[in-house]
Formats: sequence, structure tokens, C-alpha cells
Amino acid sequence: MESTRAIKYARANQARYLAELKELLAIPSISTLPDHAPDIQRAAEWLARQMTNLGLHNVAILPTAGHPVVYGEWLNAPNKPTVLIYGHYDVQPVDPHNEWTTPPFEPTVRGENIFARGASDNKGQIFAALKALESLAQNEGLPLNVKVLIEGEEEIGSPNIAPFIAQHKDKLRCDIVLNTDMGIVRHDVPALTYGLRGLAYFELWVHGPAQDLHSGAFGGAVPNPATVLCKLIAGMHDAHNRVTLPGFYDQVRDLADDERAEIARMPITDDDWRAMTGAPQLVGEHGFTTLERVGARPTLEICGIVSGFTGAGAKTVLPAKAMAKISMRLVPYQDHHAVEDQLREYLHQHAPPTVRWELKKLASGDAVLVDRETVGVRAAVKAMHATFGVKPVFKLEGGSVPIVSLFQQHLGVDPVQMGFSLPDDNFHSPNEKMHLPTHYRGIETYIRFLDAVAEK
Amino acid sequence: MESTRAIKYARANQARYLAELKELLAIPSISTLPDHAPDIQRAAEWLARQMTNLGLHNVAILPTAGHPVVYGEWLNAPNKPTVLIYGHYDVQPVDPHNEWTTPPFEPTVRGENIFARGASDNKGQIFAALKALESLAQNEGLPLNVKVLIEGEEEIGSPNIAPFIAQHKDKLRCDIVLNTDMGIVRHDVPALTYGLRGLAYFELWVHGPAQDLHSGAFGGAVPNPATVLCKLIAGMHDAHNRVTLPGFYDQVRDLADDERAEIARMPITDDDWRAMTGAPQLVGEHGFTTLERVGARPTLEICGIVSGFTGAGAKTVLPAKAMAKISMRLVPYQDHHAVEDQLREYLHQHAPPTVRWELKKLASGDAVLVDRETVGVRAAVKAMHATFGVKPVFKLEGGSVPIVSLFQQHLGVDPVQMGFSLPDDNFHSPNEKMHLPTHYRGIETYIRFLDAVAEK
Repeated sequence: MESTRAIKYARANQARYLAELKELLAIPSISTLPDHAPDIQRAAEWLARQMTNLGLHNVAILPTAGHPVVYGEWLNAPNKPTVLIYGHYDVQPVDPHNEWTTPPFEPTVRGENIFARGASDNKGQIFAALKALESLAQNEGLPLNVKVLIEGEEEIGSPNIAPFIAQHKDKLRCDIVLNTDMGIVRHDVPALTYGLRGLAYFELWVHGPAQDLHSGAFGGAVPNPATVLCKLIAGMHDAHNRVTLPGFYDQVRDLADDERAEIARMPITDDDWRAMTGAPQLVGEHGFTTLERVGARPTLEICGIVSGFTGAGAKTVLPAKAMAKISMRLVPYQDHHAVEDQLREYLHQHAPPTVRWELKKLASGDAVLVDRETVGVRAAVKAMHATFGVKPVFKLEGGSVPIVSLFQQHLGVDPVQMGFSLPDDNFHSPNEKMHLPTHYRGIETYIRFLDAVAEK
Repeated sequence: MESTRAIKYARANQARYLAELKELLAIPSISTLPDHAPDIQRAAEWLARQMTNLGLHNVAILPTAGHPVVYGEWLNAPNKPTVLIYGHYDVQPVDPHNEWTTPPFEPTVRGENIFARGASDNKGQIFAALKALESLAQNEGLPLNVKVLIEGEEEIGSPNIAPFIAQHKDKLRCDIVLNTDMGIVRHDVPALTYGLRGLAYFELWVHGPAQDLHSGAFGGAVPNPATVLCKLIAGMHDAHNRVTLPGFYDQVRDLADDERAEIARMPITDDDWRAMTGAPQLVGEHGFTTLERVGARPTLEICGIVSGFTGAGAKTVLPAKAMAKISMRLVPYQDHHAVEDQLREYLHQHAPPTVRWELKKLASGDAVLVDRETVGVRAAVKAMHATFGVKPVFKLEGGSVPIVSLFQQHLGVDPVQMGFSLPDDNFHSPNEKMHLPTHYRGIETYIRFLDAVAEK
């Protein structure tokens, strides 16, 4: 039975919902920057108030070893299934700041989009789920039991969520998990994600002289750590753009023919990719298509590098040290511990004795595949079909959401991976945005999804 | 005839001289940072007052297209030669700021050294020359004609000094140039520099996607400009640490056997170099000694590199662009224009079509050799011998002082390259210092040098 009043209510209240969303987007809850800890707290409190106001019970801001988790529940539907809804309230840093058309924490609507850091990743998505709950609660009533878990450290690799979930296993027990930190293919092509890449993210430091030296007086005679780091990075891919870490592909799952066929059906072309990224040309591992490369194959990317003098002008210095941030996306069945060993082995083999190096792990998590035949997935397909007028496609996602494998492991549940961001939403980039018509369809889809699960 | 009263006066006034030097060192006259333009002006004014007070005439702060030149003269010794004394009042930036034991612009004496940015490069040296003039002027009187030229853009490659010298050719006419922006080998090993390397310094930008992208969603499919830049840099040296730019060594002057022998006599070992730099191992072009590598062979060094996210934590971003500062030191007879062409040719050959690159010139100048048999050099040898008790060695210097070739070209004079910095003075690095006993010997040497030139 569809909650038609809830859907009408959601449509009638779009303007108020948007005004409230702007409040949440205005809070600069950047998890990686210690200066923003008070903003993290404010964002958590804002969500706790929302959850209380819409009628959830036992709403609490629960501590972890890092940023807190916001939790709430409504368990007054005996004999009905329980859905655990997951999202995160933390956001990425905003630099380069000067590339934003409007300030990242002054949410601004231009055309059909709202621009702000976190608009689509993930505040807009978790907000859509909360507004689906509110629309139901204010009308037909919630059709099933609900638990909501919103974390504050997803953008830094969820370092403290594993012990949290292990500790609160009973509290979080549920039949279905809905992961809102997801996207669709295009505004008219809904999608459910069945695979997520894992992550192994490191900082590599190379140390040469004890301090920065005059490049004229000392250049040519002492090791330059910037040059050494460049050589190490240059060697991490071969001429076919394959990663050269020893054993890197040993555990990589081959793509089945039907998977390649499913990926090939995705209505997104290389021209779309070029338009979306502005890259002069696409490039990647030989023998695979763009969509296979970003979703189904492991990658190694430099996320940042810095050494020496980088300001304006002509300071001539031979740097003492150099650092690169190296992020690897992993596919099933790559083990992130094994990948760390492979990286260390590569460095042992290739770093010259003229420098000292150290490797620091920043974040890690294994890749996941979820079952496409669960009750939750069937409900999600039905809800998307009803809202968008077409059936969703199943897709592999390049990003990593460490919590998904934790749900599998601790709660024994394969999450339904359904969110409504678009590939061109600029998440992690300047001018992050969310497409408002898609956002409103997202709220309706979540309402229909909860109805469909309740009806099972 | 030696000015014994001037030398006694210099010794008696060491404490006051040091106090005045501290005033000059406290001015953060960093030429490359636009915010410090007022400090540049203050340093110029401070020097103009010093020069007026010690009795120079026509003291003026003369404009250039960039930072001004401080000029003064004393021309009341008819039939005596004219010495033009050169130095610079601008200094390098101070980052990394947190590696300074005491703040860079709070000059601090610890043991036998004074620590401050610019202490030895070049404020301490030009100050020693001014104090030699003061000591003479207050006692026996100046024994010859003097012109003083102190520029404010040496640390950014003297971009505006060529037109200045061309324009003031008559005003600057002289018999001998003394370049104070030099050093000796060890506190007990005085030295005169007869060769300076040239400079060709560039910023290389590599552009990939139009903006920073999510490394999970897009990694593996679009060009990563940081990786491309690393590959380009990695290829700039071969396995023998020779620079691979096409034709780079074609114009390089071979070292004569007597030059190699002179260099080998330098009382400074690889152990000294390791101790001075703190580098785990020395490394450089095969087939040459450390001292040959830093003075007599051309080099290519990365002075800085930056791309993507370099702050604390785990932001996963695929950068839109990457930049490296690439500085080449040139030897006679390399032409810096030819070297720029070689770098562009290398980039044309090796940059992949997946990115766009651009090269910006930051600074340039050709290498120079000066005549070791001039009147000025003989006077300098005599003055150093008298002050240090041993004859100076002749050395090749790795650094570049663009003005030297301009003196040769416009004034027809090979400069006497005599200053008193030490190799471990940390110029361009944190904790720059000057060795005070050597500084005081420097003042006395300059007094004896002027006497010796006047006597010729």
C-alpha cells in the first residue's frame, strides 16, 4: 500500500525542506581538520534535533574514539521488519577555495541545483531519508521499525566505526540496511550499487638532507627527496597503466562476462566522461573500458604531493623531504593488508639507499559486493521504478564506503545501496552541488521503499 | 701601507657593529613575497642612512622596475683607482618556519654565531664591507675612490638589474668590482671564487581534468597530472644521474686537469659534506667528485613540487593540476636560452597527449669565469693572506649571481669574488647564521684589500 498522503505532503513541503537543508549545509563539518571539531558537534546536534522533531525515540549523540555518531529509532511496529538507515554528516575540505563560484558553506540555488560542500555527499542524501521518515510520520505513520545511524568520520575513512558497531551490535540489529551514501547514473537513469571498491590510503615520506639546502651550493651532490619520490611514483605504473606493486593483481577477481555486459549497457559514454571531467583525454589500464576501470578494476592514484618551496617566485632550495598521498582503490578479493605489504615491498625494492622513507597508513577497507536478490533490493527496485518510471540499473561504484563491509560482518546484512547523487555533482571537488528535482524524487523513492519493505 | 688605526678601530667597535647589524637583520626584506614590499623599502632606507653616516656622497635609493637599488659613492681620491662594491639587501623566504630554533627576524647570538635570515646571505657580508669603509673613513681616510651598489632582487634572480646597469653605465664606471656575495671554504681556509654557475629556473605546470575530482569515482580513467609530472621529472636524469634533456651537455666546458687538481686540493671531504648536509649518502653525476659536481658540472634539481591535497588526513582527490619548480645550474659555455629550448624539447617528446603543460621562466643567467690574474685578485690574495695567515684557495661556486656577468659585459670588469660566508651557514635554509669571528676577519680583510688596491 503506497503512502499517497506522505508523498503529497513531501511535495507540498519542498520549500520548507529546502530551507532546512540549507541550515545543515551551512555548517562546515569538515572531519579531517581539527579546527572544525565544534562544527562537527553542531552538525550532530542539528541532526539530533531533526530526528527528535520527526518523532524518533532515544535520539542520542553517541561518542566514539573520534567524532560522534548520531542515533535515533522508532520501534513501535511489531511484526514488521526493521530498517537501519545509514549516512554521514561530515564533509570533505573545500580547498582550492578560490575555485568555488559561491562560498562552500553559503548554500546557493542556481538553476536546478543547490551548491554547497556536502550537498550531495552525503548531507543531501541522509536529509532526504529523514524527510521521507517525517513525511510518513506526519501522515500514514511509519509502516515499519526504523533505526538511523549517521556517522561523522566517513570522509576520513571511518577509523572508529568498527569498534562502535561491534560494541552496539544489539542496538543496531536489523533486517535491512539502507546505505544512502550512493548515487545514480543520470537524472533519468536510477541505479542501485552492488559493488564498492575498497581503499588503502597512505602517506609516503622521503627524507634526504637534514634540512632544506641551497640548490646552487649543494645541488648535484646530495639526494633530492622530491626527485626520488617522483621516480618512486613514476615506477608505480607500467606502460599499460597497470600497477606494478609486486602481486597487486594476484587476488583481483576477474569480471564475469555478464558483469561486463551489464556495465556496457550503462547509458554513459566516454564523451560524457570527458564532458564531466574536462580531462583532455581519458586514460587507464589497457584492456578495459572506462566504466570497468572506475568500478571494477583496482587503481593507484596520487591524491597529493608536496616538497620544498611552492610559493610564488624563485626560491632556489634543495628540499629536505617530500611527501605524497597515495590512494589505492581495491576490488574483491584484494586484502588491504596484503596491498600494504605489496607497497612496502615495492619501496624496499626501489627506494635508493641515499634516502630514508616512511609509510603511514591513512585509511583502509576491503571492497564489497552485495547480494542483488534480497528483499531490500527488490523493494528498492520497485520504489525506483515507481518514482522514475524506469527500472534501475545495477552498477559498480568506484568509491569506498568502509562501513558497508562492517554491516555485512557484524550485522549479517547486505546493505541496499541507494542514494541519489549524480556523477557530475562534484563531490570532493569545488562547486559540489545536488540536483534538486532528483533530490525530491529521492525523498519519494525512500517513502515508497519503506512502504515496499513493510509490505513484503 | 696598511691602515692600522682603521683595523684597531674596527676591533674596538665590534660590539656596536654587532648591535647595528642586528637592526638590519631584523628587517624581513624578503624579495619574493609581495607582502614584504614595505620591509624591502625599510631595509633600503636603513642602508642609505648607514652609507650617509659613514661619509659617502650622493647616497640615493634608485628605482628599478622592481625593488630599488641603494647607491652611494666617495670620489675624492684623484689618481687613485675606483672600486665598486656589490651586495644585496634582500633575503630568502623563511619557511619551513617551525624549523627555526629562534625566529628568523629576531637575530640571536649563540656561541660564535649570529642566527637570522640573511645573516650571511648577504646582509652580513655587505655590512662588513660598509664597516670596513667606516673604519677607514674615521681613521686614515678612504685610500681610493669607492662606489657602493646594493640591490634588492638578488634572491629572485635580479630580473631588473640588467637594464639598471645599462642605464647607469657611466655612473658605475670603475676599475675593480668587489662582489661580497661569496664565501670561503672553512673558517681557517680563505677562498676566492673564480667561477659561478649560471641559472635557468622554471615552473612546470601539468593540467589534467578541469577541476579536482573524487579519486574513487574517477580514478583509473582520467589522467592524473601529479603522476604525469612525476614521470616527467623521473625521466630528467638517467641511471648515471646525468641530465637527459636533449643536447644538455653539448656546450659544457670540459674541466682541465689543473682545474681538477686544484679542486681536489680543497680541504673538504665527503665526510664534511655528509656532516654539513645530514644527507644519508652523497649522490650525483657518475665520474665526478662531490666538489666537481657542485661547482663545475651542470645540474637539474627540483626545488618544489605541489599537487592536490597536502593537508593532514585522508582527502581522496584526483588533482586537476600539478606544479614543479625546476632549477638548472649551468656551467660555461651553456647558454640559458639553449637550455630552455632543450627543456621544452624534452617536454614535447615526453609529455603524454592526455595532459596540457606550460612552462614559465622564473629566472635565468649564464655561468661566468673570472680572470685570476687581475690587480684586484692580487690585492684580495694579499689581504686574505695577511688576515688569515694563509693564502686563499681558488674555488668554483655552485650558486649563481646573475649580476657578475653583467659587470663583465657592461663595465668590462671581472669582479673580485670575495665574501666570508661558510658552507654550513644554512643560507636559504632554516637557522641561517654567520660565524662572527670570520665576520670580523672579513671586515679586516676588506680594509686591507682596499689598502692594497690603492697601493698598486
